[in-house]
Amino acid sequence: MKELQRMPRTVFVNGEYLPEDQGKVSIFDRGFLFADGVYEVSAVVNARLVDYPAHMERLGRSLSELRMEWPCTRAELDTMHQEMIHRNDLTEGIIYMQVTRGSADRTFNFPKVPVKPTLIAFTQAMSLVDNPNAVTGVKVVTTPDLRWARRDIKTVMLLAPVLGKQAAYEQGAQEGWMVEDGFVTEGTSSNAYIVKDGKVITRGLSNEILAGCTRRALFRLAREEGVEIVERKFTVEEAYAADEAFLTSASQFVMPIVEIDGKRIGGGQPGPVVRKLRALFLQEAGA
Amino acid sequence: MKELQRMPRTVFVNGEYLPEDQGKVSIFDRGFLFADGVYEVSAVVNARLVDYPAHMERLGRSLSELRMEWPCTRAELDTMHQEMIHRNDLTEGIIYMQVTRGSADRTFNFPKVPVKPTLIAFTQAMSLVDNPNAVTGVKVVTTPDLRWARRDIKTVMLLAPVLGKQAAYEQGAQEGWMVEDGFVTEGTSSNAYIVKDGKVITRGLSNEILAGCTRRALFRLAREEGVEIVERKFTVEEAYAADEAFLTSASQFVMPIVEIDGKRIGGGQPGPVVRKLRALFLQEAGA
Repeated sequence: MKELQRMPRTVFVNGEYLPEDQGKVSIFDRGFLFADGVYEVSAVVNARLVDYPAHMERLGRSLSELRMEWPCTRAELDTMHQEMIHRNDLTEGIIYMQVTRGSADRTFNFPKVPVKPTLIAFTQAMSLVDNPNAVTGVKVVTTPDLRWARRDIKTVMLLAPVLGKQAAYEQGAQEGWMVEDGFVTEGTSSNAYIVKDGKVITRGLSNEILAGCTRRALFRLAREEGVEIVERKFTVEEAYAADEAFLTSASQFVMPIVEIDGKRIGGGQPGPVVRKLRALFLQEAGA
Repeated sequence: MKELQRMPRTVFVNGEYLPEDQGKVSIFDRGFLFADGVYEVSAVVNARLVDYPAHMERLGRSLSELRMEWPCTRAELDTMHQEMIHRNDLTEGIIYMQVTRGSADRTFNFPKVPVKPTLIAFTQAMSLVDNPNAVTGVKVVTTPDLRWARRDIKTVMLLAPVLGKQAAYEQGAQEGWMVEDGFVTEGTSSNAYIVKDGKVITRGLSNEILAGCTRRALFRLAREEGVEIVERKFTVEEAYAADEAFLTSASQFVMPIVEIDGKRIGGGQPGPVVRKLRALFLQEAGA
């Protein structure tokens, strides 16, 4: 569960470490005006980053796909992440970072004179390892996938997931599984999995979903453990009939799902496959 | 053509009029983090707003569809628009205004404790009436429509149009016509029309396009003038074979198109129907 951090946090804005109430960007920032920005969320456990190189690799791909410049060197980004942990005394939680195409007079086309990208970051303290949701499992509801066509890029084009998450909350669920043409694409802020006959089933990578860093780590851990993962689309009906279901995300790691649209999955208890995979992930994360 | 305004402009941020370099929002603003915001652009001609009530009506619908609060009263918004004209000595150009769900600790779901919406505005001085593009006509290229499913809401979920406009610019065109399933939806920042046998053809309203305020004004002017408008989808091939083509937007009014994907439309000159409709619009705008 999320815990609000003691105020004020120290945030990062374009090279400066500032009290959070001074963390501001221009109203002309293209992130604010056009959703012309990308982001990453890295988990922190025991004051150490989890799976950080994968997040930076994905950031590079996001920037490249949108022809955006890196806001600074990779070494400077690394230092910034370490400073954010240090200055916020963050032992467990997440570091959020966002890069936008910068501030310029408003035109839909890219600024004709190159502008410096905006880089901001902030922390959120949370209990990730001893998340009580992991004991009980979470509920999800399905919701239409309203998103744009480039979900493989981790942009701030997030209003559709926002509406899906809100719809889930209002139905007493913790996550929304987005559905397109009858098939689950992914969660509003997580990747989606079912388990049937001991095999993990999850949608393959394409423009239709985000290539989750935790998803990638899970694949490796599952392979090492001899758990088979089948990459294919699955329907909502298959999900209802699954033995187990779960989600992965940087801040939730591997999270059991015990109910989908009010239908109990696996008797309403986290199943053996997801419990095993979560334990493996926690071990690797240094929990 | 756009002219950069003499610096510094006076911008509006949450009740304050500020020099533009002081116009800032929190890095926690949901407009910046989630594209959780809506906007309107109103034209100004001879220091008077054009079609302003229609923009405020649409703003109300956008806010309502997203269950966002009005940031202030309609009367306060009216005053703000007038102040922005006055303080920026704006005789011709646009007023851009944006409302977001406000600043809160980052969660995909709406903030549990209601927060005050963010309201910002700025001006851009431009030659709208004597826009030289209206004399020569503009070129458009087609580009895939990558947008989300709620294009009827005027949100800042604009990265797909940004990429489409940039692609158009790089091909020497001034606008991109977005195409879905072989049919033109609309321009990246305008509605799309063709003329065939004296009839104007444009896509009907749905979730798939924005209900343009200028589009609505055009419908009324065309009806008064006895020009028939047929609301239906049209294909890219139909557009290539059209007698005329044009676009409408708040800042471009009614703008002739003389080339689509390198193919000349109507002999490469603005045609009689679009010239008539632009003249009617300018007359009504008080040009």
